[in-house]
Amino acid sequence: MNSTAHQVIKCRVEVPAVAWEAGKPLVIEEVEVAPPQAMEVRVKILFTSLCHTDVYFWEAKGQTPVFPRILGHEAAGIVESVGEGVTDLQPGDHVLPVFTGECKECDHCKSEESNMCRLKELLQLRCSLSPANSPSRNICSRFSINGKPIYHFLGTSTFSEYTVVHVGCLAKINPLAPLETVCVLSCGISTGFGATVNVAKPKKGSTDSVFGLGAVGLAAAEGARVSGASRIIGVDLDRFEQAKKFGVTEFVNPKDYDRPVQEVIAEMTGGGVGRSVECTGNINAMISAFEWLGCVGVLVGVPYMDDVFKTSPVNFLCERTLKGTEVFTKKRGVCFYGCLMVQELELEKFVTHEVPFSEINKAFDLMFRGEGLRCLVRMEH
Amino acid sequence: MNSTAHQVIKCRVEVPAVAWEAGKPLVIEEVEVAPPQAMEVRVKILFTSLCHTDVYFWEAKGQTPVFPRILGHEAAGIVESVGEGVTDLQPGDHVLPVFTGECKECDHCKSEESNMCRLKELLQLRCSLSPANSPSRNICSRFSINGKPIYHFLGTSTFSEYTVVHVGCLAKINPLAPLETVCVLSCGISTGFGATVNVAKPKKGSTDSVFGLGAVGLAAAEGARVSGASRIIGVDLDRFEQAKKFGVTEFVNPKDYDRPVQEVIAEMTGGGVGRSVECTGNINAMISAFEWLGCVGVLVGVPYMDDVFKTSPVNFLCERTLKGTEVFTKKRGVCFYGCLMVQELELEKFVTHEVPFSEINKAFDLMFRGEGLRCLVRMEH
Repeated sequence: MNSTAHQVIKCRVEVPAVAWEAGKPLVIEEVEVAPPQAMEVRVKILFTSLCHTDVYFWEAKGQTPVFPRILGHEAAGIVESVGEGVTDLQPGDHVLPVFTGECKECDHCKSEESNMCRLKELLQLRCSLSPANSPSRNICSRFSINGKPIYHFLGTSTFSEYTVVHVGCLAKINPLAPLETVCVLSCGISTGFGATVNVAKPKKGSTDSVFGLGAVGLAAAEGARVSGASRIIGVDLDRFEQAKKFGVTEFVNPKDYDRPVQEVIAEMTGGGVGRSVECTGNINAMISAFEWLGCVGVLVGVPYMDDVFKTSPVNFLCERTLKGTEVFTKKRGVCFYGCLMVQELELEKFVTHEVPFSEINKAFDLMFRGEGLRCLVRMEH
Repeated sequence: MNSTAHQVIKCRVEVPAVAWEAGKPLVIEEVEVAPPQAMEVRVKILFTSLCHTDVYFWEAKGQTPVFPRILGHEAAGIVESVGEGVTDLQPGDHVLPVFTGECKECDHCKSEESNMCRLKELLQLRCSLSPANSPSRNICSRFSINGKPIYHFLGTSTFSEYTVVHVGCLAKINPLAPLETVCVLSCGISTGFGATVNVAKPKKGSTDSVFGLGAVGLAAAEGARVSGASRIIGVDLDRFEQAKKFGVTEFVNPKDYDRPVQEVIAEMTGGGVGRSVECTGNINAMISAFEWLGCVGVLVGVPYMDDVFKTSPVNFLCERTLKGTEVFTKKRGVCFYGCLMVQELELEKFVTHEVPFSEINKAFDLMFRGEGLRCLVRMEH
C-alpha cells in the first residue's frame, strides 16, 4: 500500500461548469476522493479520452439530468489502493476502466453470450445519492466537493485525477503496453473492433459495410479487415481520406444520391453486403444499415431515448439477423488481450490529438467540429 | 419413364371457387398439367396438408390478388416424369416439395448462412402469366383449364393430383419413410423445428419461450426439447393441454394478466428467457417476444404486409439478437434427414385430422376454428 491508501485524496476534476448544469463547459474543481470500500479500487488516472457517450450524457437531451457529475469512462491508469476483498488487483497494477463490468457471478457473466453483467445496474444506481435509492453503502458516491456529494458516471468517472471503481469494472493490462495508446481500448476502439470481430463475424473474402466513420466505425472497419473482408464500404458524410488508412475500400456519401443509401449499396454489391455495422447512433442510419443490406446487421451507436426502430417484419423473415452490442461483447480480458495480440491493429492511428487535462474543453470542441478521431487527455499529476 | 411421361395429364385440382376469387371455398375442377420442361419435375401428389400460408394467400388481404391459382405447398408425392437436364431425380422417387428451393448455384446457396435461394424469385415470377413478365418459357404456367392458364403458387401448387415443380424445390426422401407422416415436414414442422434447432439454438438446461402453439409453434417447442431446454414456456390463448405432449412445460395466457406478457415471463424466469421463438405472425406478439425476453428472438410467423416492427434500438444495444427464418434455414437435405434421424420427434402427433381431397374445405374449417394441428388431405387417385 502506498502512503495515500486509506486517506481521502484531494485532486483536480473536470465537472460541468459552475452551476453544474447540462451542456456547460467543464471547469477544474478540487474534489475529495474517498478511499475504496469493499470490492472497490482507487485508480490514479494517467490518460483519458473523450467519447461520444460522454457528450451524450453531458448534453442530457431526452434524459433525466444527473448533475453535478464527473463524466469520463475511456481511460488508463494505475491502481493506487484497493478495498476489502479485492484480490485480483494490487497497487501499481496498470488498468483500464470498463463500464460494462464483470462480476463473474451473475447469469450474464456465466453466459458465453452476454456481456451485460448485472453489476452495471448496481453502478447505474451509483448515479443516485439519495438514501431512498441507496440500498447499501456501496452505492453512495466516493466523490465530494466541500462536503457535497458528486454523482459518478457509468461507474468509472475518469475526468478526475483519481477515481474509485468497482473491481469488476477494471481490466488489468500488461504493464509493458503504453498507457497513452491502450487508453482508447477502454471503450471506443474495443466497441467497434469487437462489434465486427466478436458479433458481426464477417467471412473471409466478404463484402461488408460500416455506417459512420468516426473512431468506433473505423475500429469496426479494422475488425472487418483483420477478419479478411475483401470489400469494406464506408458510409459517412466525410472522413473518406482518413478511412482509407483503416481498411475502408469504398465510400458512399448519402448526400451524393437522391435515393436511399441501401439501394446504392445493393447496386454496388449486386444484392447487398454480408455484414453491416452501424456506428452513428442515428436512427435512420440504423434502419438503412439493416434493410436490404445482407444477412447480419449490428447496432453499436447510442440512439436518443425516444428513437424507435421501425421496419417491416418481412425484412427479418428473409433470414436477416439484427444484433446490438455494447463494448466488445465477449469478456473484457479475452478482448483486451486479443486486441493487444493483433499487431496489425495500429492503435496509435486512432489518437489524432492530445491536450493536457486543463484544456479538456478543446477535446469537446474537436468532437463538435468532427475533427480527428480520438483526443487524448493527459492528466497533469 | 412411365406411360404418362411427355403427355399432358388431366387431373383433379382444388382451385378457389367458380369465380376463382379470394376467400371463396375451393371446388374440384379438371386441370391439364403439361409435361415438365428443362429442370422441372412432374410429381404425383399423394398427400398434402393445409398451412396458414395457404390461407394467407387465399384470403389475399393486403396483397395484389393472384387468381385463378392452385394453392398448396406442404405435401408428399412420387416423381411421375422429369424434364431435360434433371439428373438428381427419376420417376418413382419419393419427394417433398420445398418452396424455398435450392439451385446450388446462387450466392445464397453457396453461403452457409442463407436459405433464400434466388430460385424463389424466379418461382414467384411464375405467378405471372403475362408475356411482359415472362423473360423465359420456364416461368410460364404448366396448368390450364379449358385452355386458360392457371397461376402456380410458391412454385409448388400441391392442391392438385399432379403438379410441376422445379427440381431445386424437391427434396428426395427415403422411400421407407411413410409419406402420410413426412408430408408435414414439407413446410410447417420443419419451419418450427428448424427455427429452434438451426436458428435459435437453445442451450442445454436453458429456459425458452414459444409464442403461438399451433403446429409450427409446437414443432419449435419440440426443437427446444430435443436441444435440451429445461423449461419451455408456451404463450397462446388456448391449446395448453395439447402442448404438454410437445415438450411445453409452462403456459402463459396473455388474457389472464392485465400487464404485458413480457413482464409476466420476466417475473417467472427472474429476468427473461434465453431464446424466444415467435410463431403467430401477430405483430404485437413479435414485439413482445423480442422485448425483455433474453438474448435471441426468432420470428417465424408470417405477418400482414402493412405490419411494422417497432422497438427502441436500446433493446438491441442490450446485446439482444433478432433473427427471422423461412423454413429450416439450413439446406433442406440436411434438415430433412436430420429430422428423420431424430427418432424422438413423433411426427404423427402433428397430424390430428385427415380428409379426402374432395373434402379439402373441411381442412379450412378446422383451421378457422383453431381445431387440431395439421389436417392431412389424402389424394384420391
